[in-house]
Amino acid sequence: MKKNNHGMKRAMEKSNNNHQFRRDPISGNWSLIINDEKELRKLAEDYKRKTVEDINPKSKYAEGNEGATPPEIFAIRDPGTNRNDRGWKVRVLPNNDPFLQIHGDLDNRGAGMYDVMNGIGAHELVLESPTPGEHLADMSSEQLQNVLAAYRERILDLKRDTRFRYVLLHKSHGEGDEDLLHHSHSHVIATPMTPPRIKVELNSAKDHYDYKERCLFCDIINQEISEKERIISENEQFIALSPFASRTPFEICIYPKKHQTFFEWNTEFSQLATTLKTVLGRIKSILNDPKYIMVIHSGPNIAAGKRRGYWKTIERDYHWHIEITPRFHGLTSFYIGSGFQINVASPERAAGILRSGRF
Amino acid sequence: MKKNNHGMKRAMEKSNNNHQFRRDPISGNWSLIINDEKELRKLAEDYKRKTVEDINPKSKYAEGNEGATPPEIFAIRDPGTNRNDRGWKVRVLPNNDPFLQIHGDLDNRGAGMYDVMNGIGAHELVLESPTPGEHLADMSSEQLQNVLAAYRERILDLKRDTRFRYVLLHKSHGEGDEDLLHHSHSHVIATPMTPPRIKVELNSAKDHYDYKERCLFCDIINQEISEKERIISENEQFIALSPFASRTPFEICIYPKKHQTFFEWNTEFSQLATTLKTVLGRIKSILNDPKYIMVIHSGPNIAAGKRRGYWKTIERDYHWHIEITPRFHGLTSFYIGSGFQINVASPERAAGILRSGRF
Repeated sequence: MKKNNHGMKRAMEKSNNNHQFRRDPISGNWSLIINDEKELRKLAEDYKRKTVEDINPKSKYAEGNEGATPPEIFAIRDPGTNRNDRGWKVRVLPNNDPFLQIHGDLDNRGAGMYDVMNGIGAHELVLESPTPGEHLADMSSEQLQNVLAAYRERILDLKRDTRFRYVLLHKSHGEGDEDLLHHSHSHVIATPMTPPRIKVELNSAKDHYDYKERCLFCDIINQEISEKERIISENEQFIALSPFASRTPFEICIYPKKHQTFFEWNTEFSQLATTLKTVLGRIKSILNDPKYIMVIHSGPNIAAGKRRGYWKTIERDYHWHIEITPRFHGLTSFYIGSGFQINVASPERAAGILRSGRF
Repeated sequence: MKKNNHGMKRAMEKSNNNHQFRRDPISGNWSLIINDEKELRKLAEDYKRKTVEDINPKSKYAEGNEGATPPEIFAIRDPGTNRNDRGWKVRVLPNNDPFLQIHGDLDNRGAGMYDVMNGIGAHELVLESPTPGEHLADMSSEQLQNVLAAYRERILDLKRDTRFRYVLLHKSHGEGDEDLLHHSHSHVIATPMTPPRIKVELNSAKDHYDYKERCLFCDIINQEISEKERIISENEQFIALSPFASRTPFEICIYPKKHQTFFEWNTEFSQLATTLKTVLGRIKSILNDPKYIMVIHSGPNIAAGKRRGYWKTIERDYHWHIEITPRFHGLTSFYIGSGFQINVASPERAAGILRSGRF
């Protein structure tokens, strides 16, 4: 409900503006798109992260301090270097303060009319650079490919555990305590049920395929390629775009152009690294290094699913993608009560800015 | 993903704690409940609102400055006082900077595979007291009943407009610019489609009734009354409780105990005012006057719906309620990517605190 009260004059001006509800065909939710140039220009200021000056080069997560962390689960390393020692490019640790517990059996039960499941899962920390302060947008293509390869390894490995229905790659840039705040990192989180947002996407994708015999996401990609105005960046394999019903200004979605269900079935990441570097570089430079969330929405764990007969059509229906969401602020109170998201930047305008690199 | 890193010791301690996924039978979403006493105690500090010292008694919304605002749409007044003059108890204005436009016809159309609707709607501002700084928690029962009666009037009136599928009463306490920040107010927002959260509730309620021939909400109320531990306050007509799968610490839901579909079908509000005053007073005193959101989830606009044959079973299925959500913070990044909400206070613990008035 945060909106300035500059009086009736502005309200009148605004009635001439783009003022649309748009439905997202994936989530089924409606966003209210209010393209408001004044608010848009304030974003670059509002989105500013907390100070980044105090990067700690002696952080326990920096190369050389491997003894100060729990033993590594996985690392991509220079040849000839040792586990839990120098020479790593990407390093994966158990999360110190996990909100899910790795040990135990699943206990899924009813409690009267309610459903309860114990908090079994995995929570790992991916250190994406040996150097504090080096973020994804600054990395060489080679290092970005290492990071993506590490995501792949952990997702594949955790999916061997059939207690887990889903493995989510979750990055929250500019968030984290102490040393982590300024050290590029992501979380790999394995959960005993499919996350609600993924479940909605799976259901929409299945309905769309059942009805049209085409992949929902492929249809979106085709329409976006023909309309062009929401495309930010494109190469042979990948397309980055501002979603038609963006929930938040400068939301970005990256799709493989060819139908593919699972992120982790890729073994080569050079074009994805190029696309990521482009879009993360743009939001960093245009919005002054904002906080953002990045998630990989890959297909669910078919090893866990098949056993139960779920999602037989998953490879047909689902199309993995990456969502990047600069952190919204202020406007979310209406969302909490109603589910309507209000967005002050039209996706066409946002894509134009991200494509050109300037307002 | 904001969690402190106090090392393995805390992680070990935590494995003994309540650590549960719980499914909300209304939204279908899962919350991860991690009862964390340390985080819980920090909330009272974190939840502190911005300074409330600078209440402006000369605010344009204060009694006596009626000429500085747009003309009133509705007011509850002392007998013999005039429109747009002193003597009001509750006053409703058009919102100065609405995000929906009242004028125009609905234009619902497809755009390729997407759906678009123009931003037609109504957006009104309810001034809940003639005195800046007097909030719902501080009011006399009589004044709270005036406020509830004003909500009712505006909802009834806006529902006469069949362009509107829904009328939402939305309050965001501690938010707003300039004079509004410290002047108790709510928004009445009429929208041309049912808000996504209400739609999910309507669907769950219908599924439940179709299957069990009972109201979903009545079933919840019955289970809560028999289990007792999540009840905060109860009188003859109303019950206030911490929802089983609370999305956020100290979330509160108020239900009429007898099945009723529409808030606005009430004409007498004394018991509801008592319940509201109790729970808002508790969160004010325990959590240092936090920001919170309050919404009334009433049934949709059957005048608009009937014409189209929707929701024939609405009076059977749906049960109105009030949701109160202290503003969460920090932990929401995981929610944005996954749809899982993480809550550091179990509803049983939260209800115990709210019931007793102390930690």
